[in-house]
Amino acid sequence: MIRFDTDPSRYHHWKLACDGPLATLTLDIDEDKGIAPGYKLKLNSYDLGVDIELHDAVNRIRFEHPEVKAVIVTSGKSRMFCSGANIYMLGLSTHAWKVNFCKFTNETRNGLEDSSAHSGLKFLAALNGTTAGGGYELALACDEIAMTDDRSSTVSLPEVPLLGVLPGTGGLTRIVDKRKVRRDLADVFCTTAEGVRADRAREWKLVDHIFKPQQFTEGVKARALELARQSDRPGGAGVALTPLKSLLVDLSVDEQARTATITVNGPTREQIALRRSAEWYPLQLARELDDTILNLRHNHLEVGVWILKTRGTVQEVLDLDRLIAELQPDWFVRETVGYLRRTLARLDVSSRSMIAVVEPGSCFAGTLAELLLAADRSYMLDAAEGPTIALSPLNFGAYPMVSGETRVSARYCGEAPDLPRGTPMEAKTAKRLGLVTFAPDDLDWDEEVRIAIEERVALSPDALTGMEASLRFSGRENMLTRVFGRLSAWQNWIFIRPNAVGEQGALKVYGTGSKAKFNWERI
Amino acid sequence: MIRFDTDPSRYHHWKLACDGPLATLTLDIDEDKGIAPGYKLKLNSYDLGVDIELHDAVNRIRFEHPEVKAVIVTSGKSRMFCSGANIYMLGLSTHAWKVNFCKFTNETRNGLEDSSAHSGLKFLAALNGTTAGGGYELALACDEIAMTDDRSSTVSLPEVPLLGVLPGTGGLTRIVDKRKVRRDLADVFCTTAEGVRADRAREWKLVDHIFKPQQFTEGVKARALELARQSDRPGGAGVALTPLKSLLVDLSVDEQARTATITVNGPTREQIALRRSAEWYPLQLARELDDTILNLRHNHLEVGVWILKTRGTVQEVLDLDRLIAELQPDWFVRETVGYLRRTLARLDVSSRSMIAVVEPGSCFAGTLAELLLAADRSYMLDAAEGPTIALSPLNFGAYPMVSGETRVSARYCGEAPDLPRGTPMEAKTAKRLGLVTFAPDDLDWDEEVRIAIEERVALSPDALTGMEASLRFSGRENMLTRVFGRLSAWQNWIFIRPNAVGEQGALKVYGTGSKAKFNWERI
Repeated sequence: MIRFDTDPSRYHHWKLACDGPLATLTLDIDEDKGIAPGYKLKLNSYDLGVDIELHDAVNRIRFEHPEVKAVIVTSGKSRMFCSGANIYMLGLSTHAWKVNFCKFTNETRNGLEDSSAHSGLKFLAALNGTTAGGGYELALACDEIAMTDDRSSTVSLPEVPLLGVLPGTGGLTRIVDKRKVRRDLADVFCTTAEGVRADRAREWKLVDHIFKPQQFTEGVKARALELARQSDRPGGAGVALTPLKSLLVDLSVDEQARTATITVNGPTREQIALRRSAEWYPLQLARELDDTILNLRHNHLEVGVWILKTRGTVQEVLDLDRLIAELQPDWFVRETVGYLRRTLARLDVSSRSMIAVVEPGSCFAGTLAELLLAADRSYMLDAAEGPTIALSPLNFGAYPMVSGETRVSARYCGEAPDLPRGTPMEAKTAKRLGLVTFAPDDLDWDEEVRIAIEERVALSPDALTGMEASLRFSGRENMLTRVFGRLSAWQNWIFIRPNAVGEQGALKVYGTGSKAKFNWERI
Repeated sequence: MIRFDTDPSRYHHWKLACDGPLATLTLDIDEDKGIAPGYKLKLNSYDLGVDIELHDAVNRIRFEHPEVKAVIVTSGKSRMFCSGANIYMLGLSTHAWKVNFCKFTNETRNGLEDSSAHSGLKFLAALNGTTAGGGYELALACDEIAMTDDRSSTVSLPEVPLLGVLPGTGGLTRIVDKRKVRRDLADVFCTTAEGVRADRAREWKLVDHIFKPQQFTEGVKARALELARQSDRPGGAGVALTPLKSLLVDLSVDEQARTATITVNGPTREQIALRRSAEWYPLQLARELDDTILNLRHNHLEVGVWILKTRGTVQEVLDLDRLIAELQPDWFVRETVGYLRRTLARLDVSSRSMIAVVEPGSCFAGTLAELLLAADRSYMLDAAEGPTIALSPLNFGAYPMVSGETRVSARYCGEAPDLPRGTPMEAKTAKRLGLVTFAPDDLDWDEEVRIAIEERVALSPDALTGMEASLRFSGRENMLTRVFGRLSAWQNWIFIRPNAVGEQGALKVYGTGSKAKFNWERI
């Protein structure tokens, strides 16, 4: 059972230090504290446990340290920034573990860019030593990269030449899409196991700044302060992310039926009023939903269908959304919306079928209507005194998918009709406008919903994963959809090919002294 | 040995009939004429051989029938348009065969859209009976879809529910990207094996027009004539695609070294002057290069590195390009450029490493510089009296990749510097401008090129496929890059998962009466 909630007192691998507008996140991995047995996290290499801490640490900065404007990401080891994901861990992991691990680490890295773009929190990678694979990919997710020019440290993406797999956390995508490294130089870089030293790294645009070792600390600080100047974070008292309690999200897992029902309780009047605390409804919701999604993804692999429900009153969600929209310039509200945005974005890339069920007593409105819009399909009871749904202005821009497109827009493939905002809609209206898929009446309801779920869980899980990944993202693409679509799909393939994971595959024989044996067919 | 050149006298499966501005392509599959043994092409289902004929037939219309403005694609069977790719063929095929087959069929379908967009040749799918899987995907590639409303014929994408794989030729992508079918309806459609009948198909935007059987022929003709009115094809005498001779492209395959050297001979003065014949240099080049790429892809699976060379004079290629640019409004020149564009686009999605080698006597200029730009990396000899390269205006728009971006732009990730047009460049200039990757001098040349090739062929072929697919397409994405990237990558994965191809996988047990057995883990 993998748990995702932690706090700095329990960190093994990261140190968080705040100093005025700058925070420093220092990666200093305890090699004996892998999240699973069987490998040592040598050379500042990481596994899922390391990334769970990073996810938490960045959230602490977001909420507990509004005075921080720029974060320096560096290493506590000498001459080694980070050697990437631990290879022995990858060699021992199941296919599902590898894919889940990559997805979570991708989301954490995207989260850095999300905070830079939306919340004024800037990141500087300070590569104080050799930086390989996932270590360099972490740097790529930062706004700028500074590197020590000590004549020996290198940056590299050695996955293709050394391991026969791809850099799994966006490296291939970010070097060309974000850093605009010329395509043929990217080709050379990604096939050169030993990587490149500082001068060439800067020449090829792989890093932004290089400093001699004796100028490194000072140079990094100057750049970080420069990044901080681009930030509009306000300072002031932070909001403690107190230990996560289960208040709003009910999870019921039926392993036999391979379904999970996620029921989100809408806000009460008391939970709506803004309090600067972790228990403000939308922040509590974001944290719980985040934890629920990650829990289901990692701990319930065979649970293929997530049934999404809500319980509460539509009007109160609309009231909450009005307050959020009004207060959005406030840093705490902005961070909360960001947390929700990133959490909802996890749904779009979860390899599970999602069916929203709109029953009496539900409150799929505004922020909570994003669950309806994230679902692959939806069923709404059409009955007298039946449920209503509603959209709020927040559905039209506050929670875009990673593609940058709203779920409303993506639903209609970019051709959304005029949709009412703030007005509750009954099933017939919702169906006519295309906001729900089916609207059975009382007589058919139980049977139709039951059959839909039964049919869904019976389908090939692999085919569903590929289908859903294709249908959920139509139209607009960007760097992140390429990371989750193109790159991750290729990696999924490579991760089960004998050339990587067979007995003589490159990932399996790494470190044994044996040479990988390949089937040379190009596919 | 799969051969790709054919002509109507050798067709088994398609009939081509021209009548003024309309052509009709009738699919009437001979079930006993599969391209490989072991299966019958029942229910108008197809295999690679059927698609080779389609590729040829469309080229015949392009060149031999400039009077044709719209093509009706229909079936010669009663109540059955096409049931898609033959499932038994898929079940018997190797992984590589399946992937190559899907790639080629995708390219053929993209070619229909390419001709509609660039050459005024419009396509109408006339679904005169049940249309399933790849049959419907062929229809999706047409400009419009007409369907018989006979109360029994259906359209469907049954791949996910019946076979545990994805629709492999763009179906998932086109229904949302091109036809804007609402995402949840697309989800329902793609998980419903039995498909939908005409009325619902039109309601969901899966087809454009429905006609009762007795009005079908007339209705289809009226729509085709309407499409023809949108065309600017000029009529007049066509140019016969005479049997393909090997004149311009030298192919040398070293199976042992796993390399192929493709040497393109530049034009002579005589070959440049426009003649309306298949032997006009650029058309002859397009046909030979097309054939060479397809031959290497399908018949030389282990040949992982293609070495691209040219032989001729830079000035003559520039002269040719000047003529092409000048004459481009001419239908024959426009079709020729289109053939080159589609052929060069095959390079970008070929799962082979491409290394351009620029030696003395080479002529990587203009149209032939696209080979240099398509390569993953390039080596140019830096010597007195060394080779030169040159760009022409055609490099800046005539041959875009399927992303719609030129190879020049993609090379620099959208940030191309000012580049000279029409001026030959020596190695130092080419290197400085970033048009070649490395420019070794005489002393290092042999060793450096040799090592680059040796190192490349030693890498994991799977990792290279994923890496190259990621680096070749940065930045701009569209429907076609999603077909080749997102969709094909997922399909590659699914095609080797036991859930599809294991002993009890859905693809294997289809038609046996047994039920597939799945590993239920969602990945």
